[in-house]
Formats: sequence, C-alpha cells, structure tokens
Amino acid sequence: MHLLKYIQKNIDSTATQEDLGFEAFPVSVKKGTVITDYGQQVDKGYFLIEGMIEVLFKSGEEERIIDFFVSEGFFAAYSAMLRKIPSDVKIKAITDCKMEFFYFKDLEKAYENSFLANKLGRIETGGLYLKRVQREKDFLTKSAEERYIELLENHPQIIQQLPINKIAKYLGIHPESLSRIRKKLTS
Amino acid sequence: MHLLKYIQKNIDSTATQEDLGFEAFPVSVKKGTVITDYGQQVDKGYFLIEGMIEVLFKSGEEERIIDFFVSEGFFAAYSAMLRKIPSDVKIKAITDCKMEFFYFKDLEKAYENSFLANKLGRIETGGLYLKRVQREKDFLTKSAEERYIELLENHPQIIQQLPINKIAKYLGIHPESLSRIRKKLTS
Repeated sequence: MHLLKYIQKNIDSTATQEDLGFEAFPVSVKKGTVITDYGQQVDKGYFLIEGMIEVLFKSGEEERIIDFFVSEGFFAAYSAMLRKIPSDVKIKAITDCKMEFFYFKDLEKAYENSFLANKLGRIETGGLYLKRVQREKDFLTKSAEERYIELLENHPQIIQQLPINKIAKYLGIHPESLSRIRKKLTS
Repeated sequence: MHLLKYIQKNIDSTATQEDLGFEAFPVSVKKGTVITDYGQQVDKGYFLIEGMIEVLFKSGEEERIIDFFVSEGFFAAYSAMLRKIPSDVKIKAITDCKMEFFYFKDLEKAYENSFLANKLGRIETGGLYLKRVQREKDFLTKSAEERYIELLENHPQIIQQLPINKIAKYLGIHPESLSRIRKKLTS
C-alpha cells in the first residue's frame, strides 16, 4: 500500500495528494542497507510499504536495537528531525524493503498550510509516543520472558526474520537467556 | 501564562480562541492533590500555568516516578487518552498548582475541523515523544551521576522542591546512592 492509500485508509478516506501538500517518491533497498547512519544529517522520512526495519543505538561499547518498524507505516530518525541535529541512531533494512521517501523540508512546508499534513503528523507522532511509553513500562513491569511472548504474539514476523542475538538485543538480555526462554516455551 | 497566550507565543501569534476550537477552564489544586488516579477513566487534559506535577507508575511492589511536568506546558494521562483505556499512571501535584483543564471530547471535536488544534497536537505530541526517547537513551548511555547533573542543570526547581527519595525514584537508583552522588558533587 502506498502512502496516500494508507492515509485514505487510516486518516481520511477523501484525502487527495493536493490535500496532503507534500510528495513521496518510491525507493527500494536491499537487506542490510543502512538507510540512516550515526552522525548523518537527516533530510528524509520514509513510508515502509513492504519489509522490516531496525533502529540501532550505541550504548557505550554495545549496540542496542531500540526499535523495529514493520510495514505499513512511517519511520525516520525522528528525534534528529524534530531537534534538527545529526542522527544518533542507525536505521537499517532487515529485509529487502519497498518504501517511499519524502523530504522533511517538503513536509515542513506542508505543515504551514495543510490540515491533513498536521492531522497525519499528530496521529503518527501519537503512535510513536505510545510505542516508546509502552516499551518503558514493559521494561519496568514485565520479565524478559513476558516481553518475548508479547513480541512473539504481536510481531511473529520479527521473530521469524531475525537471528536470536538481535532479538536478545531488543529485549535487553543476553542471547543465552533468550535461548533458555525459548527452550522453556517450546518444551 | 494562560493556554491561549502560550499558543500565541509558541505555535501561532495570531491564534484566537475560535481558531483553537476548544475551551479551557481554570482550576487550582493544593500540593499533594491526586489529579488522575490509577484505573481512572480519563476525560480531561491540563495546561499547567504554575507549579509542578509528578507522574507515578507501579512497577511490581514499587512505585516509580516516570515523569515530571513544570510550568508552562500540557500534561495528561496521555497514553490512556490515546488508547481510550483507564489510566495506568497516577498524576499528582508536587506543589500548589494553577492550571487550566479541557475535556478530551472537546479536543477531539476540535481535531475534526481546527487547523490550529491539529498543529498544536502535532507539536506538543512531538515534545512528549522527544522526552520519552531522551529518557530511554539517557538510561542506556549515562551514569546515575550524569543523569543527576543534567536534572540539576535543566530543572533545578525539581531538585529544590523534591525530597531526595523522589529524585532517586525518578533516576531509578537507591536514595543512598543519590546521597553519595550529592556528597561527592558538593565536596
């Protein structure tokens, strides 16, 4: 599904390209492609049509996975965009991905006049906010096993696509602990 | 500063009450007042004119402080509002507070037609998102001492107003560890 179709389905069924006020352009990348790197100036946001994306963040010597995106939906180095600073995350394609990209400067221009762009921005930002808050609360209240089961239920495709060490990195545990959890759950 | 004045200063200098499309009503509460409780159905958001607010969250037996709000700005049990579920946080006045409140149903109605309400929602939600992401990244990369120094620099009024055990709860450390940090910094 393309960006405009997603908006018609989720935000406003009568939405037109003109209402939206900014354009998006198709792009495909191969598995493993770095879409945004550490320290990069970010000038684009993306709508993921097909595929999976991971967001990495350096914590001292370690690299943690702090987010996944699955189609369909928006992703970007959003903090860097909002704060107008270079990216402190690396965004990478886990699988081959079909996407559309748009320029932040076009989006910002649309925000000046387009009701639909502001509505879209409000709703999508709300979704991103909920995801962060949920992750924080999950870490405070749920065991690694409970968090793994939730991931399995809500995003089975992530579990299928990713090697165990990446899933462990996202859950914030050692790969050995995750192996034990998986063994326990399948036995 | 009242809500409309805040909007004129930060969002759109020509904004009128009519543009905004929803009303806010003044309310004052005493220090210690529970504004939203665990399990409560939430129907209101707030604009803090004067005072300080804490947001508590139960983590097993423990109660953690996951957020502070200082004037001027919006606060609410925002996850509960977005997801239309009862609140899983408790919101409490740390000091006597002057606020304005508004009904979510009025805000939602405004979102249907008001460009300004959507722009406000987009920008304020972006601010809340950044705060959560920053806290997550701080926990991954900074020591408790570094996080305390940042709190001291960015929100000295929180340090002044709050007992040491509350600050420790926010930093996610034991009060004794915080005492050690404070002693080290003042020596």
